[in-house]
Amino acid sequence: MALGVSPIPFTLVVYILGVAAIIMIFLWNIHFRGGFAWNTSHKPLIFNIHPVLLLIGPIIIGGEAIISYKSLRLKKEIKKVIHLVLHGIALLLGIIGIYTAFKFHNESGIKNLYSLHSWLGIGVIVLYGIQWLFGFVMFFYPGLKSSLRSKTLPWHALFGLVVYALAVGNASLGFLEKLTFLENSGLAKNGTEALLVNFTAMITILYGVFVVISAISSPTGADDYAPI
Amino acid sequence: MALGVSPIPFTLVVYILGVAAIIMIFLWNIHFRGGFAWNTSHKPLIFNIHPVLLLIGPIIIGGEAIISYKSLRLKKEIKKVIHLVLHGIALLLGIIGIYTAFKFHNESGIKNLYSLHSWLGIGVIVLYGIQWLFGFVMFFYPGLKSSLRSKTLPWHALFGLVVYALAVGNASLGFLEKLTFLENSGLAKNGTEALLVNFTAMITILYGVFVVISAISSPTGADDYAPI
Repeated sequence: MALGVSPIPFTLVVYILGVAAIIMIFLWNIHFRGGFAWNTSHKPLIFNIHPVLLLIGPIIIGGEAIISYKSLRLKKEIKKVIHLVLHGIALLLGIIGIYTAFKFHNESGIKNLYSLHSWLGIGVIVLYGIQWLFGFVMFFYPGLKSSLRSKTLPWHALFGLVVYALAVGNASLGFLEKLTFLENSGLAKNGTEALLVNFTAMITILYGVFVVISAISSPTGADDYAPI
Repeated sequence: MALGVSPIPFTLVVYILGVAAIIMIFLWNIHFRGGFAWNTSHKPLIFNIHPVLLLIGPIIIGGEAIISYKSLRLKKEIKKVIHLVLHGIALLLGIIGIYTAFKFHNESGIKNLYSLHSWLGIGVIVLYGIQWLFGFVMFFYPGLKSSLRSKTLPWHALFGLVVYALAVGNASLGFLEKLTFLENSGLAKNGTEALLVNFTAMITILYGVFVVISAISSPTGADDYAPI
């Protein structure tokens, strides 16, 4: 199903959507939700860290990591390190972001792990971690034999894209869940904040779609899919 | 990114997950939600039709339509008709299911089209319809020239899988939204019904993942991706 087209236009769209999503998530959490705090009596400020880190980490930086082989004109070895490091940062921000949700729940007396968003979130971060570790061992250090790498690479790419799609889906669940809570507490269903959250979610979903299309477009260099 | 493996084990998993999801959605809406009605003073019985039709239509039958080229050992021409007819049924059930959500809202005095689930749902059903019409015209009647079909087919497959992934993501949003409404009205967050709904959503997501893996696995017959 590889597409015989250049990835460049798609990766440009990814950058534009990514910048838009980051601006919108900060606008939402600073202007409408009051900003961030780690130790505070106003507990929602702890929660606000969660969507920002999860969006910037696994979704935006994770997406850039996926398309780094297509968007950058660098040597294969450098792109591999960038792919690995960006996914590592994405994973770390994801873990810290999930921790802030637990911290907020625990300090506010809210149950943990009852919703689909939380179930899928734990599943996705575990799969993301496993994928990163397997990728490190198989393709970086110590690395499989060349023939085995060739066989393993399509599965690494498939599993990575599935986990990424689940992450984008779960981000959407998070936007909907948080907004539904706010609307149940009186937020206007067609108000400015509700529109902003829904549009941020739509931009996030589009970002994910364009990351996947960039990933399956033609390689920028002939050696991009060489197994070493 | 084509996988050099047989699709048969994956399509078997799809069947098992599909049967499980159908049993669970009926169990939820009949046993826990009180069943179905079209004209009734108890309006939630109208809504109950919505998740059942959307799950069985675009998700289950739509998934079977996607993997029909891989799961069936029939002539290419017959599989094409099955692909087309199953997607047509999926689309029709989707449209009726969406209509029931509007009917429920209108008769209950609930706003339409304010949530991410509704926005994405309208987007997905429109894209599903466009994809079906383009597929019909390009590959069935009157059909493009052979050389043009070969060029168009990867885009048809990609666009179809993207729309399908969005449909599965939006089904998850629907499960989470409905359950959050029920929990806000007093349903136990760790009760039997909440667990059933979350597990149905997880099975639905897994179903979608295995549909996509089946679709990108190796063809069952050498002529499966021939353009005619």
